[in-house]
Amino acid sequence: MNNFNFYSPTEFVFGKDRENECGTYVKKFGGSKVLIHYGGNSAKKSGLLDRVKKSLENSGIAYCELGGVQPNPRDGLVYKGIELCRKENIDFILAVGGGSVIDSSKAIAAGVPYDGDFWDFYSGKRIEKALPVGTVLTIAAAGSEGSGDSVITKEDGMFKRGAGSDALRPKFSVMNPELTQTLPAYQTACGATDIMAHVFERYFTNTTEVEITDRLCEAVLMTMVKETPRVIADPNNYEARANIMWAGMVAHNNIVGVGREQDWNSHGIEHELSALYDCAHGAGLAVIMPAWMEFVYKHNIMRFCQMAVRVFGCNMDFENPENTAIAGIKAFRRFLHDIGMPINFAELGAKEEDIPALTEKLGLGDGKTGGFVHLSSEDVSQIYKIAAKATL
Amino acid sequence: MNNFNFYSPTEFVFGKDRENECGTYVKKFGGSKVLIHYGGNSAKKSGLLDRVKKSLENSGIAYCELGGVQPNPRDGLVYKGIELCRKENIDFILAVGGGSVIDSSKAIAAGVPYDGDFWDFYSGKRIEKALPVGTVLTIAAAGSEGSGDSVITKEDGMFKRGAGSDALRPKFSVMNPELTQTLPAYQTACGATDIMAHVFERYFTNTTEVEITDRLCEAVLMTMVKETPRVIADPNNYEARANIMWAGMVAHNNIVGVGREQDWNSHGIEHELSALYDCAHGAGLAVIMPAWMEFVYKHNIMRFCQMAVRVFGCNMDFENPENTAIAGIKAFRRFLHDIGMPINFAELGAKEEDIPALTEKLGLGDGKTGGFVHLSSEDVSQIYKIAAKATL
Repeated sequence: MNNFNFYSPTEFVFGKDRENECGTYVKKFGGSKVLIHYGGNSAKKSGLLDRVKKSLENSGIAYCELGGVQPNPRDGLVYKGIELCRKENIDFILAVGGGSVIDSSKAIAAGVPYDGDFWDFYSGKRIEKALPVGTVLTIAAAGSEGSGDSVITKEDGMFKRGAGSDALRPKFSVMNPELTQTLPAYQTACGATDIMAHVFERYFTNTTEVEITDRLCEAVLMTMVKETPRVIADPNNYEARANIMWAGMVAHNNIVGVGREQDWNSHGIEHELSALYDCAHGAGLAVIMPAWMEFVYKHNIMRFCQMAVRVFGCNMDFENPENTAIAGIKAFRRFLHDIGMPINFAELGAKEEDIPALTEKLGLGDGKTGGFVHLSSEDVSQIYKIAAKATL
Repeated sequence: MNNFNFYSPTEFVFGKDRENECGTYVKKFGGSKVLIHYGGNSAKKSGLLDRVKKSLENSGIAYCELGGVQPNPRDGLVYKGIELCRKENIDFILAVGGGSVIDSSKAIAAGVPYDGDFWDFYSGKRIEKALPVGTVLTIAAAGSEGSGDSVITKEDGMFKRGAGSDALRPKFSVMNPELTQTLPAYQTACGATDIMAHVFERYFTNTTEVEITDRLCEAVLMTMVKETPRVIADPNNYEARANIMWAGMVAHNNIVGVGREQDWNSHGIEHELSALYDCAHGAGLAVIMPAWMEFVYKHNIMRFCQMAVRVFGCNMDFENPENTAIAGIKAFRRFLHDIGMPINFAELGAKEEDIPALTEKLGLGDGKTGGFVHLSSEDVSQIYKIAAKATL
């Protein structure tokens, strides 16, 4: 196990009707004038936005609003948000939505007290301070409600880049599973895939002797394998929604990933897909992750056997462990297909002829990525090719 | 799943040599004059106390010291600590030791800003504020480094009582597994038992549909089942020590226990044993927990089957599930015996004739406890009797 710091100071406020308490928590964490940041009309139509405003009013907190966050949130709206916050003397940002809204809120929070261009933070500059952020989560997926991470897409060139800092960790996150019940099956499945990917990115490591985090990773994965099909079958299953929502936080606040090298190549490779085709991040991951696994599994066959046996209940082939490793990857892809995810380029709406452009955009040049297996441009291109043609 | 709040704002600073950074973290969390609180001479002899002081000096932080915390920490030293902190204008308490030292530090932290008797908090009064506490952990066991809980024994009558508050959660906890390597096998095993008990107290619940926390509980338990025998066999096994140390935090900061009713009867029943005989808490739990399980398992046989199959790898007897439930409890007791723990009163140094007094002291009267199964005085007495005579 490697040395590490773990710091997850967010207060999670979980369960039915808890959005009615968000005024109390904004106050608890020092907010007096709030920017409510949200996405499309669903938060309005469902009455959620009204409940949030009422809760703020009950606590005597002023607010203004900025809607319009798109999936794969753009820098344009972030600039607009920063300007609005400065003009209105906002001291707290309340994200009402999913990962995109939260990521956009974090970017605004970092940008407001910073003299330069907020994009500097998405180009590697360290974030030292930010406005406090709270969230009212409506999609179980990104884990952004418990993480210090944010991903923004630069409209000029559609580059998707991330920034991370403890300063971006939400002060509180309201997590009411009921709010996710209106989410269509496809988006629910995309979220579930993203949650599992967050775990796999940590699970595939070269660090040995990490039994506790291995087991915690597997706990989240097994939960997703059990609960996701239940939600797809019945979107109103509160209990399954609740298990998935909490699993989504656990998957990404790093409690399952401390003390070990992590991978994150699948996320990097996928980001180019969702940036180019504007597809859902989770759908892109469903296509990329199993392909990545097929490309790298020989690097550590026993680790893939561990996944196969412990997570997907495969029988161990002691005579030929490679069979078990392959069976585990196949079981994962079959699971993704069964919950309605695309498993190849055609199903995703991606084109094989774009592979050179996708690879080029990742910008590896003659270099290699870090992670479980270090990948060259040629390796990434191979992974896209496997993903393009994948079948069950 | 029930509604819940989860809040674990402690910064965990984990790994080799990290105690050399504690000055940095005291400063980060606003301390300028520290009480170093510790137990016996081992922290002095090992050089740990000197390293801690040097780190504080390097950060320009003043300090004074109070040693002498005993296992099952007493109120007498807490009063002394409170007085010393007030006299010396202490603004931060640094616990260097195990759960007892941390619990004593939390009691002092709560007492300093309070006008009345600190024991009020251990009699049910709510803790609103406390001095900030940091820890340098030397024993993986109590989980006090990541919890808001504290247990203190009142010398007058040897009553053991707990208090809990988010205000008591440590600001930071340095967790260097090397510091636990000098711990004798017996104490190491006591710690491991305590860690497992913290999980079991949460695992046995009447709340249904809590797959994510069930799986997380099982993750910690399986880790302990794997790693504890390795440490007993080789006390210098850093990797196994590291896994156990992190498991000990995860077991008790409540990430594995949210959204569900919890039990805690075994802890209550055990506390009377360690208060009367001054035995190690973990050793008492090794005697009590399996006995409690044997008394209550019929309340939910399938839950005990789940433990048996998932944690201890028992085969499921589908024709007679009760056999599997019993096999799981037996496997747990066998495990405890194998790591050197007592499994009955004789091995613990407790006396069967004290059972009426032990039961009386718990103070149930005609009432019942809460938890998985609500227990009357007579039930508790039965559990002590099972514990008294237990065999493999």
